Amino acid sequence: MSARVVVEEQLRVRYAETDALGVAYYANHFVWFGVGRVSFLRQIGLDFAAAEREGISFVVAEATCRYHAPARFDERLAVRTSIQEIGQTSLTMSYQISSLDSSRVIATGETVQVFINMQTHEPVAIPTKARRLFDQALSHPSGS
Amino acid sequence: MSARVVVEEQLRVRYAETDALGVAYYANHFVWFGVGRVSFLRQIGLDFAAAEREGISFVVAEATCRYHAPARFDERLAVRTSIQEIGQTSLTMSYQISSLDSSRVIATGETVQVFINMQTHEPVAIPTKARRLFDQALSHPSGS
Amino acid sequence: MSARVVVEEQLRVRYAETDALGVAYYANHFVWFGVGRVSFLRQIGLDFAAAEREGISFVVAEATCRYHAPARFDERLAVRTSIQEIGQTSLTMSYQISSLDSSRVIATGETVQVFINMQTHEPVAIPTKARRLFDQALSHPSGS
Amino acid sequence: MSARVVVEEQLRVRYAETDALGVAYYANHFVWFGVGRVSFLRQIGLDFAAAEREGISFVVAEATCRYHAPARFDERLAVRTSIQEIGQTSLTMSYQISSLDSSRVIATGETVQVFINMQTHEPVAIPTKARRLFDQALSHPSGS
Repeated sequence: MSARVVVEEQLRVRYAETDALGVAYYANHFVWFGVGRVSFLRQIGLDFAAAEREGISFVVAEATCRYHAPARFDERLAVRTSIQEIGQTSLTMSYQISSLDSSRVIATGETVQVFINMQTHEPVAIPTKARRLFDQALSHPSGS
Repeated sequence: MSARVVVEEQLRVRYAETDALGVAYYANHFVWFGVGRVSFLRQIGLDFAAAEREGISFVVAEATCRYHAPARFDERLAVRTSIQEIGQTSLTMSYQISSLDSSRVIATGETVQVFINMQTHEPVAIPTKARRLFDQALSHPSGS
Repeated sequence: MSARVVVEEQLRVRYAETDALGVAYYANHFVWFGVGRVSFLRQIGLDFAAAEREGISFVVAEATCRYHAPARFDERLAVRTSIQEIGQTSLTMSYQISSLDSSRVIATGETVQVFINMQTHEPVAIPTKARRLFDQALSHPSGS
Repeated sequence: MSARVVVEEQLRVRYAETDALGVAYYANHFVWFGVGRVSFLRQIGLDFAAAEREGISFVVAEATCRYHAPARFDERLAVRTSIQEIGQTSLTMSYQISSLDSSRVIATGETVQVFINMQTHEPVAIPTKARRLFDQALSHPSGS
């Protein structure tokens, strides 16, 4: 038996993130996906900051968000991040943002990351160590 | 003969929009889509601010961006916005962001907007006047 | 004996907040002051969201930040917020942002808030209940 | 006779920049100061992006903004930037943001920039070429 690793990060909607409609502006959900992504990578043991010092980084090649309910000022949110698919040079991650105040689902989405050389901005194969961490996170032994 | 209205808005990548990789952070492209959207609606004669004063607004129900090339600090960009599809309560708009410095395509994407009552946040049919403007923008007589 | 209430809020520097220099862009410190401010007001019992529903809000009349050290991506920060001065229609709050990773002081600053009527945007005297909460937070009995 | 160089940059308030009060959130004014600053430096002939490629950059050491009137969604603004003072390693710039729709002054402010080595983040004397450009901008022959 195995299960996917899901990492949850909690945050509150900032006043700076609201717009004239009184709810979070739609671009902020991608910032929150970014917060979830960094948290996920830290949790599975990938040192994002260290990777950047070694000249390898991610870039996002595609991003999608579906908005199910507005997120209000000061609302507490949970961002749940997991891996959906692992490619040669790319990684698809999926996100669910839900409200901790109302338990409504606020948004769901995916991003496709491509590993790149920070100098050339060219895609590179996912480094072996990182791939092993991703594989484990996609199907880790349940109970662990 | 008819052609789709395409509205172009120009902007420069702000320092605030760059990230530690030295290029624009991926959430900003959605902010730029937003700039293009407002410009488009103003251009076809829809008064966005006035609509909001009447209690009707858009919310974004879905948003997607595909990133083709990084956008660098101070790079001049063109955001080209057009209508892709008109539904009962929704409107799909498409965007192309390209560099005016290099003519590279930076990103393409779509957003689905749903018309809502600002009090209830419930979907409402696209108001008649707005629908007429959208219909004209989707297939306006070429040459005009 | 009395002491000033200081409320601490913790956060991490988001990737979206870094710039091409690899450190947090200077405008984000004001967003973090905003996070500290909301947390402070919640802590002393002022219901910010409720106040807005009653048509009274703050606007910032003046804001200053002094930058002592750069804040890096993923660095854990503490924002310490307190009241510095209470006027007729205004409130001065002060902030210290320090790193939880290095204990360096990152930034210090102040904001002057003015209470306003949300319809007219005119200044109004600080409501009695809010003033009492602010007075207590400025000189609350120590040990409590 | 001499006069200070003032560079004007125009922009529109983005929907992303509004908050639940329906006006631009106070941190955005510092982003707009940043837009004015980059425009000013480009105008007087300082190549900001080139300077960064040579390993020298500015950091903001202090920033202040006084808010005179709210800036509303879609309002057209002018940011007027000039040099206020030139030090050994620092430069003080001043800003005035006004509305092109109503001619109201929206905000005024200053930032103190310190020249730094991008590797060490230590202050360095303003490079000779840059200092000459700043001196000229502070007291350039009028009529030119």
